[in-house]
This record gives sequence, C-alpha cells and structure tokens, in this order.
Amino acid sequence: MIDTPGRALIEFTDRAVGWVREQGVATGLLTLHVRHTSASLMIQENADPEVQRDFERFFARLIPDGDPLFRHTCEGPDDMPAHVRSALTSTSLSLPVIDGRPALGTWQGIYLYEHRAMPHRRRIAVHLLGD
Amino acid sequence: MIDTPGRALIEFTDRAVGWVREQGVATGLLTLHVRHTSASLMIQENADPEVQRDFERFFARLIPDGDPLFRHTCEGPDDMPAHVRSALTSTSLSLPVIDGRPALGTWQGIYLYEHRAMPHRRRIAVHLLGD
Amino acid sequence: MIDTPGRALIEFTDRAVGWVREQGVATGLLTLHVRHTSASLMIQENADPEVQRDFERFFARLIPDGDPLFRHTCEGPDDMPAHVRSALTSTSLSLPVIDGRPALGTWQGIYLYEHRAMPHRRRIAVHLLGD
Repeated sequence: MIDTPGRALIEFTDRAVGWVREQGVATGLLTLHVRHTSASLMIQENADPEVQRDFERFFARLIPDGDPLFRHTCEGPDDMPAHVRSALTSTSLSLPVIDGRPALGTWQGIYLYEHRAMPHRRRIAVHLLGD
Repeated sequence: MIDTPGRALIEFTDRAVGWVREQGVATGLLTLHVRHTSASLMIQENADPEVQRDFERFFARLIPDGDPLFRHTCEGPDDMPAHVRSALTSTSLSLPVIDGRPALGTWQGIYLYEHRAMPHRRRIAVHLLGD
Repeated sequence: MIDTPGRALIEFTDRAVGWVREQGVATGLLTLHVRHTSASLMIQENADPEVQRDFERFFARLIPDGDPLFRHTCEGPDDMPAHVRSALTSTSLSLPVIDGRPALGTWQGIYLYEHRAMPHRRRIAVHLLGD
C-alpha cells in the first residue's frame, strides 16, 4: 500500500529490498504488480532527482492532460492520459533475487509512478518465490 | 489461441481467471507471453469502452500507418507500426495469484492488443506456478 | 554480460536458448532483467534487419538526443533519451519454457537494446524455474 501525493514518481526500493530480506529467501524471483490502471511501476535511475522531472516533462508533452483527442474524460482531463502513461510504462515487474536481494543494478531504483493529479492510495500485489 | 477481428483490444480476463481456477492453485504466479511481434498484452480499464477507442486514437496519432519514416513495409502500411505498438506495450505479463485468482484490481482487465489491420490467430504461452 | 557497440539492438536469442537447454529444464519460467537504466530488453522480429533500423528511426524522432526539454544532461545529449527509451520498452522479460525452450514465436528474437551512443558492458540477471 502506497499513498501518493498526486502525480509523481515515488521510490520504494528500500521497502521492497527490506521485505525480501525479512522473508529469508536467498535465491528466487520477486514479482510486483500494481492493481490500478492509472499508476504504474518503473525501474529507473535514482541518483539525480532531475531524471524524475524530465520523465514528467516528457510524458506531459507526449500525452498532455486535456488532449482533445480523448473522449474518456469522465474523471477529468488527467484520466485518459493516466491510462496511456500506464500502458507505456509497466504494470508488473519481475526481478531475480540473488544473495537475498533483488538483482538491481547500481543506479536502479523501484518506483511507483502515480499518473493522476490527485493523491491516491495504491495497492501492489507481491509474489516471492525461492528458498 | 485467440482469433482477432483485426486491430482491436480483445479482453480475455474471464478466460484467464477461469483457467487459473481450474488448475486449483491458491497462491502462485501466472505468466502470459504473446508469441507474436505485432500483437501485445495489456492490462487496462475494462469499465468504459471509450478507453479502448482512446488508446486506438492515441497510437494511430503517435505511430500512423504508412508513416514514410518506415522502410520495413513488406507486409503493408500497418506492418512496422504494429511492431512499434507491440514494443511500447507488453510482450509478457506476470500476475501474482492470490486466493485462487490473478490479483487484478477492481477495474483491471487483461487484453490482447491486435495491432495488424487484418484478422489473425494469436497464440499466448502460459505458465502457472503455485499450490 | 553483453558488450555493446553503442546504440543498437543486439540479439542474444541463441545464447538464451542454449543456456536454458544446458540447465536441463523441460517446463518452467525464464526471467531476464537488465541491470541498467539506459539499456533495455525487447522481444521483436528477427527476420528483416530493416525492422531494427526502423525502431531506431522511430525512437530518434520521438526522443531526439539533445532535446532541450531535458535538464538531466550531465552524461551528454543521449543520457536522458536513453532513460526514456528504457522506460518505454522493458527492463524485465518473463518467458514460459516449454519442451526445454523459451516459448518464443516463429519470428521472435530476444534483444538487448543499447540506448547510449558509446559502447557499454551490460549485465543481465537471469532466473530459471522448473524441472
């Protein structure tokens, strides 16, 4: 469960890594699935915060809120853009677990990408396999 | 095996959920992989059919059929756009299974996205782990 | 470990298929995860090399190097475009293994997509489940 402040990339690497450690699995597979159609998962650079702002700039240009192309606007101008942003990024992530940790690269962080303008409570389903 | 009517989002949530139920797996992991390069898998909103039409409008604008940018046109003006649409969405999906069901959110449906203009027969490879 | 020549799609289907064969797994699940934020994984057509060049043309138009939209430019004009290209394609792939082989379709190849202009050494984490 992650509470979001509205549109933003929210890193939860430490929480995921800590949870895997608690399960005592040395070698295995971690799967994360976001149970929403207007938020997504992304693995990206976690060193320079400007990267997150650049992602936001890119998606805002590619899929602008209120784009007259879209007719599914019942929940507002950010509704359909949030679905498209979700489809272009990822709903689920699969990560090998090696030596008790998800096999992330040096600069990789795990993010929930909230695509709606308003705050939301987002649920992520988790599966861990291994021993 | 899914027969498509040409370019469209085809929902098969019920079939996937029913198949998992028949296997008698309570907790596990469901993996789907589409064995084609011009059709893809997508988890999206299944409440308002306008969402599917908006997806089509978006992709048709971003990657228009017959775009002179493309040289791989041997199978027609929708050939390379179909490959690009596939790459921007998903070839495989991983879904935790909880209480005997894929852990989909309330509004999430599982779709095959046919990107070619003509009807096709599409095969999806499935793996289910658990007990 | 894959050494890349700079921006390119590098196919490694044979290596992945051969590795699975050596493990002696008949039925299972193969997961690949690229441990970088400026290279990604993609399953695409491996018949016509023009497809790869068309992908490059498409991404170069959608996310041009040196785009003044981006501020994260410390590593050069291809830095942030590489992150965006990675996010729009895939960081991880999940492939059912059937009859001792990843269940790829006839025309599907597994590619590492190097998004940086310069050569890099890229690491891919692998997990194989099954018996």
